[in-house]
Amino acid sequence: MTATMTTTTRAMLGAYPASINMDRSKLAAAIDMLISCSQACTACADACLSEDQVQMLTKCIRSDLDCADICDTTARVLSRHTGYDANISRSLLEACITACKACGDECEQHAGMHEHCRICAEACRACERACRDLLATMS
Amino acid sequence: MTATMTTTTRAMLGAYPASINMDRSKLAAAIDMLISCSQACTACADACLSEDQVQMLTKCIRSDLDCADICDTTARVLSRHTGYDANISRSLLEACITACKACGDECEQHAGMHEHCRICAEACRACERACRDLLATMS
Amino acid sequence: MTATMTTTTRAMLGAYPASINMDRSKLAAAIDMLISCSQACTACADACLSEDQVQMLTKCIRSDLDCADICDTTARVLSRHTGYDANISRSLLEACITACKACGDECEQHAGMHEHCRICAEACRACERACRDLLATMS
Amino acid sequence: MTATMTTTTRAMLGAYPASINMDRSKLAAAIDMLISCSQACTACADACLSEDQVQMLTKCIRSDLDCADICDTTARVLSRHTGYDANISRSLLEACITACKACGDECEQHAGMHEHCRICAEACRACERACRDLLATMS
Repeated sequence: MTATMTTTTRAMLGAYPASINMDRSKLAAAIDMLISCSQACTACADACLSEDQVQMLTKCIRSDLDCADICDTTARVLSRHTGYDANISRSLLEACITACKACGDECEQHAGMHEHCRICAEACRACERACRDLLATMS
Repeated sequence: MTATMTTTTRAMLGAYPASINMDRSKLAAAIDMLISCSQACTACADACLSEDQVQMLTKCIRSDLDCADICDTTARVLSRHTGYDANISRSLLEACITACKACGDECEQHAGMHEHCRICAEACRACERACRDLLATMS
Repeated sequence: MTATMTTTTRAMLGAYPASINMDRSKLAAAIDMLISCSQACTACADACLSEDQVQMLTKCIRSDLDCADICDTTARVLSRHTGYDANISRSLLEACITACKACGDECEQHAGMHEHCRICAEACRACERACRDLLATMS
Repeated sequence: MTATMTTTTRAMLGAYPASINMDRSKLAAAIDMLISCSQACTACADACLSEDQVQMLTKCIRSDLDCADICDTTARVLSRHTGYDANISRSLLEACITACKACGDECEQHAGMHEHCRICAEACRACERACRDLLATMS
């Protein structure tokens, strides 16, 4: 995501006292994208609530809320390495990719009208890509 | 789950102003099991931390933490019906079933030694079943 | 809250291997109310989103979202007893009481129009009371 | 926090369609610190679980888990501006400052032994400061 941010996530990965069975660089990128995407989705849901046309944005708000919750949980699970279970990480990444794709598609439809939807769609796309990149390395 | 509890979850389902594309009875059961399982997992992780043999319970604690987070998020997503997207519910239920199965298996190994693991394993099994029952109705 | 539900929360409290510096009965009641209130608030926010008059319910949705998040976190913190820190529990209970009061007040204003707001207001009031009862026992 | 990160949080604040009754710069800083601190706490709890001396780190793990949950919820509440209620933000910031202080103090005691505790203590201190700075501007 960003210099300092990545530094903290990466530094914590570097300080883990046992081995990590994942590509650390892709893992750090995914975690940072997940927490940034979750924040963007929470903020976008709230910004939609304050639009005059909130009636037309109800599906968008719902997608945002789901995506925020799923990204938060995925970031937490990926931040744990003790007693690693690849099946859980993999199935959760798949659910997260589905949610990010759906939210990105939905927000994109309002991107021309609402700047918050444009920014949020970008965050969802970036997060989806980072999750796919990580998943691809998990055989 | 329980009389009053189910009453609240069910009452909220009954008060939803549009149609719900799911079996309401199985949906209410799944939501109640998810929030009860999440609480049991959070409490089990903490009880494990206070055991003299915490060293032997680290994988159990990690499973509990993942399961708690995933169950909480699944309960939230299933509690929303506006702009329903079956793909998200389905993939998240699959991830949740994976997490409940793993946590139930892990806790079961310590059920003879630790009453909290025995209770938590039961909550995970019940939650896994309720999620499978709901998933089976979602064509 | 309810027979079985309370049974699980209570059973986990009973299985905790060290001492708990709180009134167990009030603690179990508060945890059960918190997770039930959180679910009601998540469902109420979503039901509001599907109302024709969503424009008039935006403050209610926002109160619901805050209350759901704060109740979830408070239930988790109260479910942990290892290395207990009364200052954290107390300040979080105070924030939670503030959120439940605000959400109960807001939902009550729409209780005549929307059954989901009526049920959610009741859940918020019950949760606020349970949190106050617990806080009163923590000197 | 960081260049790009702050850019997303700030950009979302800039795209909010109504007025925000807070210092936007301090608000963005607080949100970024909260989500970064939450990630560090989740990772530190897990790293502690994998240490040989986990028995000596149980209070640290518990502080980490509480701090992660409270920071996540505080970041969410601060990311919402619709129907703003200063009492909720204020009381939650107070609870969050209490949790960050406690977790920072606890992690600091293990900072000489465990690099993850040293990094996490720093994240807690930075987050506590950002929350205090924001709270000071909320009359």
